[in-house]
Parts: sequence; C-alpha cells; structure tokens
Amino acid sequence: MKEFFNVTSIQAVLALTARFKAVCSEQVILEEAFGRVLSEDFTAAEDIPGFDRSTMDGYAVCAASTYGASEANPAYLSIVGTIAMGQVPQFTVAAGQAARISTGGMLPMGADSVMMVEHADIIDEKTIEVYRSVAPGQNMVSKDEDAARGEVLLKAGNRLRAQEIGLLAACGRSALAVFARPRVGIISSGDEVVPLSARPQPGQVRDVNAYTLAALVRRYGGQPRHYGIVKDRFEELLAVSRAALSENDMVLVSGGSSVGTRDLTVDVLAALPQSRILVHGVSISPGKPTILAQCGSQAFWGLPGHVTSAMVVFMVLVRPFLAHLGGCINDAPVRVPARLTRNVASAQGRVDFVRVRLVSRDGELWAEPVLGASGLVRTMVAAHGLIAIEMNSEGMEQGDRVEVMLFE
Amino acid sequence: MKEFFNVTSIQAVLALTARFKAVCSEQVILEEAFGRVLSEDFTAAEDIPGFDRSTMDGYAVCAASTYGASEANPAYLSIVGTIAMGQVPQFTVAAGQAARISTGGMLPMGADSVMMVEHADIIDEKTIEVYRSVAPGQNMVSKDEDAARGEVLLKAGNRLRAQEIGLLAACGRSALAVFARPRVGIISSGDEVVPLSARPQPGQVRDVNAYTLAALVRRYGGQPRHYGIVKDRFEELLAVSRAALSENDMVLVSGGSSVGTRDLTVDVLAALPQSRILVHGVSISPGKPTILAQCGSQAFWGLPGHVTSAMVVFMVLVRPFLAHLGGCINDAPVRVPARLTRNVASAQGRVDFVRVRLVSRDGELWAEPVLGASGLVRTMVAAHGLIAIEMNSEGMEQGDRVEVMLFE
Repeated sequence: MKEFFNVTSIQAVLALTARFKAVCSEQVILEEAFGRVLSEDFTAAEDIPGFDRSTMDGYAVCAASTYGASEANPAYLSIVGTIAMGQVPQFTVAAGQAARISTGGMLPMGADSVMMVEHADIIDEKTIEVYRSVAPGQNMVSKDEDAARGEVLLKAGNRLRAQEIGLLAACGRSALAVFARPRVGIISSGDEVVPLSARPQPGQVRDVNAYTLAALVRRYGGQPRHYGIVKDRFEELLAVSRAALSENDMVLVSGGSSVGTRDLTVDVLAALPQSRILVHGVSISPGKPTILAQCGSQAFWGLPGHVTSAMVVFMVLVRPFLAHLGGCINDAPVRVPARLTRNVASAQGRVDFVRVRLVSRDGELWAEPVLGASGLVRTMVAAHGLIAIEMNSEGMEQGDRVEVMLFE
Repeated sequence: MKEFFNVTSIQAVLALTARFKAVCSEQVILEEAFGRVLSEDFTAAEDIPGFDRSTMDGYAVCAASTYGASEANPAYLSIVGTIAMGQVPQFTVAAGQAARISTGGMLPMGADSVMMVEHADIIDEKTIEVYRSVAPGQNMVSKDEDAARGEVLLKAGNRLRAQEIGLLAACGRSALAVFARPRVGIISSGDEVVPLSARPQPGQVRDVNAYTLAALVRRYGGQPRHYGIVKDRFEELLAVSRAALSENDMVLVSGGSSVGTRDLTVDVLAALPQSRILVHGVSISPGKPTILAQCGSQAFWGLPGHVTSAMVVFMVLVRPFLAHLGGCINDAPVRVPARLTRNVASAQGRVDFVRVRLVSRDGELWAEPVLGASGLVRTMVAAHGLIAIEMNSEGMEQGDRVEVMLFE
C-alpha cells in the first residue's frame, strides 16, 4: 500500500541519516589515501620527531650562555663540533660552548636551543660572537612535539588532506583503514529520456541526469554505477531497482520529470521488500517532489527530473547522506559570505535555493542571482553556488548578507 | 657556473608561468571527464532542448486566451488532447483551447506557454476553467534556450564540474579533448631522510615531504611520480634529476632542510643542460629558500625542507604553475573572509603566511592563528587555511578582516 506523508523540512530529512549505517572499512596504501575517510582513530606508536631537532641553521647552545648578549655586549662561545645531518652528535655542549647545526639536525646533549646563524659572527675557527639571547626551546622542536607516543593524532571520520597524509608518513604508516567509498546506483527513468549517443527526436531529451549525478557522487566520495534508462513501466523499474539495491549502498532514481514517473517511483518503492517511504516531498524549491525510502539498510532516493532541481537536492540532501554512509564527520560544504546584488522574491513555507555567480566589486564579494528558466543546465554552468532563502522569508533585498554554498 | 639572484616577489614568480607551455591534450570519455580541464572550446552542434518544452505540469495554451482571467472572471478553455512524454503532439492548440502536458513535454503547434495545473479547475472532460493569465514563454523553455546551434558553450581552460558534465551530456558529447594531467616528478633529498618503512635513528626523519607533495599534486590535477630519496651527493642528485626531467612536465626536489642540500640543488641545476635558474629565494615566510629553474621546457623546483614550508610554497607558488601547465584558467583557491582572533606580528619586506583555524562565533567567522613551531606538521593538521600578511605590514590586529585561503 502506498503511504502518504506531509512535506518534510530539510532538518527533518537530514535527521534521518541516523537510520543508516556507515559502510565497511578497507585497507589502502598511503599513496592512495588522499581524500579518503579514516575509519579508526590513529594513535602515535612513537615520539615524532623522536629527537630534539633544530628548525634553523645556526649553533646549538645552552640558552643560559646567551642571556644578556647584545650588540654592545656580545657573548663569546667556543665551537666544540659540527653536527652532521642524520647523525647522532658524539659530544655534549656545556655552558659557554656551541656546535654548528643545520635545520633538521639533532641537538647534542647539553644544548637546549639554537642560535640563528644570522645572529652570530665567526671570530675564528673555534669561537663565535653572539648578539642576542635565545630562550630554552627556541629554534628547535622537542622530541615529542609533533606526536607523543600513545597520543590520538587523527580521529576516525576525518577526511584525509595532504597534511594528514604527511602526519601519517611522519609516523611511518604505509597502509591504513579507511571507509569504503559508498556505492551509488544511478537509474534514469522516463519515456522521454534517450541515451547520449541518440539524436533526440522532438519531445525527447538525452540522459543528462545520470552523468551529472555520477559526477557529484564521485566528487563527494562515492562510487557511481550506471543502471541505464528505464521506461515508465512498473515491472521494468522494479526489476532495475532491485538489482541496484542489491549491488549498492544507495540508489538514485531520476530523469523522468512527469508526475507519472514520480508516481511510478512511489509504486515501485511500496512493492520492494522491507521498504519504507520516509520522505515524500520536501519543503524546498526547487526539489519539492523528492522521495526518500529506506529499503532494508539502503537509502533509495527519487530525485526530481530537471537536472538543476536534482543537483540542488543532491547538494542539500543527498550529499550529507553520502558523507554519513562514507563515515565522514567533517564534510560540510564550503560557504562564502557575500552580499546580494538585487532583490530576490521567495515564497513562505519552503526554503528557496537560488543559484548565484560570485562577483568582486570594490573589494567586496557579491552574489548575483543567475537568471533564466530554472530547468536550464546553463543556469548551473553560469553559477558558482547556491544561496538559501529561509522558510519564513518572503525574499531578500539588494545588499543583504548571504552565505553562498559553493559548487566545487 | 652558478647564477645568483635577488629574492623574488610572489607576483614576479607567478609572472614566470608565461615561460612554460601547457601540456598536450588527450581524449577522455564523459564518465572520466569530471575535474578535467577542457582543451578546446565546446560549441553546440544543435539546439538544446531542440523543442519547446514545458517546465510545469499543466496545460499548453495560447497565452492570449488567458489574458484578464481572474478568480472573479475565469477563462474557459476546451481540451483538445493530451501530450504524451517523449512524443510529438499530432494536433495544434488554437485560441480558446488547451492540451494536457507534463513537465518535460513538448508544446504543440500554436501553444506559446503553459498554465500550471494548480491554476486551473477541471469543469468536465472537455473543459477547464483558469484563474490567472500567463505570459508568452511562461512555464516553458524555448527550443534553443539551453544551447543554440553554433554557440560556444564552454571555453577551453575551464575545469569541468558536475554541471559542465551535464551540459556536455545534454549536447550528446560522449568523449572530449582535455589537457593531460601534468606529470610531476617528486625527489626527496637529504642525508637525514629515510623511507617510511624505516625506524628513524636519532637525527633521521621519515620521507614526509614526498607523500605530502604527492597528495597536493593529485589534489590539484597532476600525476605525481616518486623518485625516491637521494643522499646529498652531487652525482646522485644529478642523475635522478635528469631521469625525472626526462619523464615529467615538472619536478619537485625537497626534503633536505640543510643549507648543504639547497646548495647542492643549485649546483645540480647549474649542471643540467639548457637549465636556467629563474628564482633563487622568494620574499615569503615560510618558504624563502625556494628555487625555480627552467630546464628546457620543464619547471624544476627546489622546495624548502620543512614539510610545512614546502606546503605553503606549493599552495602559493607551485599550484598556479601546475594549473598553468594543466591548461587551467580558472583555478584560484577558495578564499573565505574572516576576522583575526588575535594580533599577529610580521616582518616587513616579505609576505608572511600564517596558518589559521576557522571558528564560528556569534554568527561570524574568525581566523585563529595556530600556535606551535612552524616546522611541525601537526600545526598544518590543525589548520583550515592560510592568511597572508602583506609585504609592507608589520602585522595585523585582533578583529582585522582577513581572507583565508582554504586547504581543500
């Protein structure tokens, strides 16, 4: 039996992520880990760098030997050796002594700081004159300053950027556990939809949505898989939906823009085993006719037919689900503050998403609404991002401050 | 012979991109085109959608038949047919007539607009009553509104986002020419650098830079290739540099943090055929000891040894070169305005890059400088981006407005 729902708010849709579990983990080598999501906390197995390390070219000294040194009253230190890169110094530095050291070199016993080469003059082979004082710990890092053994350095759920890869490399991790990329099945439906290779007859359109959605899935960490174009026939859509559900963590149906296709999606969802329609209509525009069902442990979305509406629904609703399935806890879209170039009207009772271009004017960033019929993909090509006009607003005015959610 | 240069400004370094040519093109299928850079203008071969298309569920009408219609004074229209999805209507709509149409349906001859289903009441099988007027062109897109035959839709040099993929799909392009991903050879140098798998002895460090730089290269559209760790010996670095230059579009040497390694890099560059050192020292901090040479048609960078400095130089200098080599004309980093949480001191005569965390406070975004020794990779892990303190500034004050260049 079909179930009927009231239109759901964005917040209520997003709260439904809790009904779905993150995908399994897999091992990857560090070279392949960029952009992946850590699936377990990462703990340092040793101190890093593991030795007191100079961060400057200069002289390893006892800080106390330099106290009070100035241009007028320099301190004189005797050179007791040179520290070779990658070597353990075989001597100690006592009060009144110094050792030549390069950036990255290991401080000898006795030394607690580094005097920069620029602040010392060479008097002879055995003596330098220093003009400044250094504090203990200055121009060096101590042996556990980057990581202390047993410390949790990275939490599960973080997407790995270049610096996290660097930290893992510093700790010697050449392989690690990450969440698998959620598998996302993509079905296009609609009697009017034809393959890319076809020359559409009048009344027909090419399968734009499947390619656009696959690109978004890929961008946000999923693995898209295409299930082709399905005509508006119950048995056909049911069979393809079953296949897609059995092979993926999430399924997106879109492409048909008629009421008929949407009704068909609801009929198919009602007929699937262990299926429950959670959302049938969302209070956003564009994107109102969005459907979300839970089929066993999987999420099944019915997305609007217009590619532009499907993109908005993806950015606002599907993307957080994809992040959740992928185990990611820090995947908010980038938002940039700007000011509106002109008035934008909006209906109350729904959140309106308006595509905007960002333009710089007098050192300020302005969001310029993109004109053109909402179904046109070219309006998305012209846009840098979306602004939301909230539920209780009748619109916004020129000069108002907005946040632009960027398309990346 | 070694050449000596004055410290170069960021702007002067970036101007040197003009000395290098973009890489060659290659063909990719549309499924693999996301994130790639178009290498030729893309021109529409046909009108898209190719027919007048409804953007609403409702009735195709002649707008003039609805003029003056209101709740008090509705207009009555006779239904002459139903337009099936994907079909060419076999009838025309004249004044006083209407045809049932779904979103995406083709408008019949004679109709110039669509009356939304919500604004009409069904009187009987043959008649509707409408309460509003529509304007010609309303609730429809005309046949060449998304793309007109012969129009340049996308310019060469644009990185393809999901919407560009959608536009290409709409136009039936299943394969296209994009710039190849620039090949970037990565060499680690320094006697103190050991492989990931090694347990560093005191004084040694693991090869952090190669992994971090490879992740950045990949993130910004290049193909990294590792050339391993080279000891601080002239012949060895020369041989590996030659090999890397012969197989890549750009080469990065880094990892050695000592003056010795830097001097060695300069010696090797001077010994390479057709080599010219363009930059030897840049007025930024961190990152001053950066070297850039042109070797034949390739760019050869000597990056600072601290991974954090190497990352800053990559983001500020190498990234724009990588974009240029990759043919990309619109690859500026994302910048987010924020306010400083505390005073930051800076030296005049150089641009200081400070790593910051973004924090939200009272609805405003604040940039909080990350503390800790500048060589520590954990300071980068804690940061969301960088702010620049300009050449002529002695620092910035709490509350000052800054732009944060995001690590993505």
